[in-house]
Amino acid sequence: MTEEVYDLAIVGGGPAGMSAAVNARARNKDVVIFESGQLVSKVDISPHIRNYLGFSDITGPELAEKFISHIEDENIPVINEKVVKAYPMGDKVMLTTNSENYEAKKLILTVGVNQKAEIDGEADYVGKGVSYCATCDGKLYEGQDVIVISESAHHEEEANFLADVCDTVYYVPQYDEIEHLDDRIDIIEGNPEEIKGEDTVNKVQLDTGEYEVAAAFILRDSVPPSEVVPGLELDGLHIKIDENYETSVDGVYAAGDCAGEPWQLAKAVGEGQLAALKAIRELDK
Amino acid sequence: MTEEVYDLAIVGGGPAGMSAAVNARARNKDVVIFESGQLVSKVDISPHIRNYLGFSDITGPELAEKFISHIEDENIPVINEKVVKAYPMGDKVMLTTNSENYEAKKLILTVGVNQKAEIDGEADYVGKGVSYCATCDGKLYEGQDVIVISESAHHEEEANFLADVCDTVYYVPQYDEIEHLDDRIDIIEGNPEEIKGEDTVNKVQLDTGEYEVAAAFILRDSVPPSEVVPGLELDGLHIKIDENYETSVDGVYAAGDCAGEPWQLAKAVGEGQLAALKAIRELDK
Ligand SMILES: Cc1cc2nc3c(=O)[nH]c(=O)nc-3n(C[C@H](O)[C@H](O)[C@H](O)COP(=O)(O)OP(=O)(O)OC[C@H]3O[C@@H](n4cnc5c(N)ncnc54)[C@H](O)[C@@H]3O)c2cc1C
Ligand SMILES: Cc1cc2nc3c(=O)[nH]c(=O)nc-3n(C[C@H](O)[C@H](O)[C@H](O)COP(=O)(O)OP(=O)(O)OC[C@H]3O[C@@H](n4cnc5c(N)ncnc54)[C@H](O)[C@@H]3O)c2cc1C
Repeated sequence: MTEEVYDLAIVGGGPAGMSAAVNARARNKDVVIFESGQLVSKVDISPHIRNYLGFSDITGPELAEKFISHIEDENIPVINEKVVKAYPMGDKVMLTTNSENYEAKKLILTVGVNQKAEIDGEADYVGKGVSYCATCDGKLYEGQDVIVISESAHHEEEANFLADVCDTVYYVPQYDEIEHLDDRIDIIEGNPEEIKGEDTVNKVQLDTGEYEVAAAFILRDSVPPSEVVPGLELDGLHIKIDENYETSVDGVYAAGDCAGEPWQLAKAVGEGQLAALKAIRELDK
Repeated sequence: MTEEVYDLAIVGGGPAGMSAAVNARARNKDVVIFESGQLVSKVDISPHIRNYLGFSDITGPELAEKFISHIEDENIPVINEKVVKAYPMGDKVMLTTNSENYEAKKLILTVGVNQKAEIDGEADYVGKGVSYCATCDGKLYEGQDVIVISESAHHEEEANFLADVCDTVYYVPQYDEIEHLDDRIDIIEGNPEEIKGEDTVNKVQLDTGEYEVAAAFILRDSVPPSEVVPGLELDGLHIKIDENYETSVDGVYAAGDCAGEPWQLAKAVGEGQLAALKAIRELDK
């Protein structure tokens, strides 16, 4: 557990989270952004953007750079870890990443939307063999065989942790270049088709074969928000919020794509500001 | 009446209106902005702004310049006239300015908020001697004495129109430098205190004296939105909108400061985008 209690923790370093952060900073709050992948990556991959007021026809990478400079100029800390759990405890919110615990007075979820489909069976076995955090849950499968479905090289370290704990670790990369994977790990080519089991997971079907495992670790940059925050109510695909941008969980706010359509930049920036101002108003009460 | 029927007319060239316009343009819609004063003037007078994502610690005039360049780059026409009336007619919305009539398929109000207090009695005599448009209503007071309370030099032309029509025209400037006022007009120093009358206006009390007049023309850059759009429902100070940013009047949307607090830039830009996208969705149905 780190010592500091932040005024405001923001989960997700896209436009919504960054806008929340600069607005909190403008009001002298101690704010931190958690980002599991790359800051503002969706903007970075856009060819050009012409509908965010102030920048006509700017390329995605240029705009991403402007956003990053802004939070750097404001000295806003970014912790490059994935938040896997967050829950209110008294008048604080506790956050767990795959390596540390943190505390904040208020939390804003700006986790975006994951447009990749879930794997068949994934939702059925969450907590019953499906896990989104190897360092958190790996020990539960000590000495057993497990499979890791990983969307990017920066999850390799988590997989390496499993190599110390589990028996066979199958690793199914959904990306091109393996970077620093432990030798003891079996790299498997293929795409996941279904997670199967009875009470708990016992098999994972790829398009290239079937693997008998006790657990499937699914390592994406995002985790379903309702997995991160127990008890979080959804509204279809999105996190349900009230007129103050607060979710069904006390002290937890949401903004941007994860809080509803349309999935657009200016909306995300505007809502990030609003969620920050609403959270701060509660903080200052 | 101009020939063109715009897809979307936007009343108010602040951040909300400009954001609505660039978003409509990005979707290839024929859009026009009406601005009675100076584009984006509230930003222009801000010393510096640090909470609009992408620009850290920029001065107000610099940011205003970026916004203006954006709509210029998108070739968005700006009509420098004050909209005094707007009402739905069939599947179009009619707009009247102090010099012309226009038509649009949908309308977005982004008129901001007027932080200057109303004059005592103003609200009681709207349509009964209080008018916000000299060119529209001046003829009603042919040969009579009238008073003009004017907040800026660019309303002088409207006052000049009255000199042709009315008997004595008293002109009470609420600004420093008179620019091109007709010689026949009586310039009066003072601040308005109360508009008085019985069924209709008969006197206006300034802090420097009382004037017997049949009408008081109040020329500000903005007009109370409920005056502009008959039947527009308010929610306290603000225009009432639903979850689609539509007002109580069919085909008329609202966004930015005029649609609710907090009065902030990113919120205005985000809502401008949302209102434009919602209006366009209806347009394309
Ligand atoms: C190719 C492309 C082009 C686009 N073009 C435009 C355009 O021209 N105009 C426009 O208005 N919009 C455009 N968009 C949409 C726009 O990019 C999104 O609406 C915007 O990025 C949403 O911002 P956000 O902050 O809500 O979410 P995101 O930008 O999705 O950010 C969410 C962040 O949260 C992180 N995260 C998720 N879960 C966790 C966790 N558990 N712990 C830590 N971090 C986590 C993710 O890694 C991600 O960085 C485009 C999108 C794409 C993909
Ligand atoms: C001094 C100052 C400093 C500020 N600093 C910040 C800051 O640091 N950060 C921040 O987030 N916000 C700040 N704000 C607030 C921000 O400027 C506003 O929230 C924002 O301008 C609202 O945009 P808007 O488009 O809704 O309205 P406005 O900017 O008010 O624009 C409305 C426009 O509509 C025009 N109009 C009105 N009626 C009519 C009509 N009938 N016909 C034609 N045109 C009409 C007006 O002339 C005006 O130009 C500041 C405001 C001020 C005054």
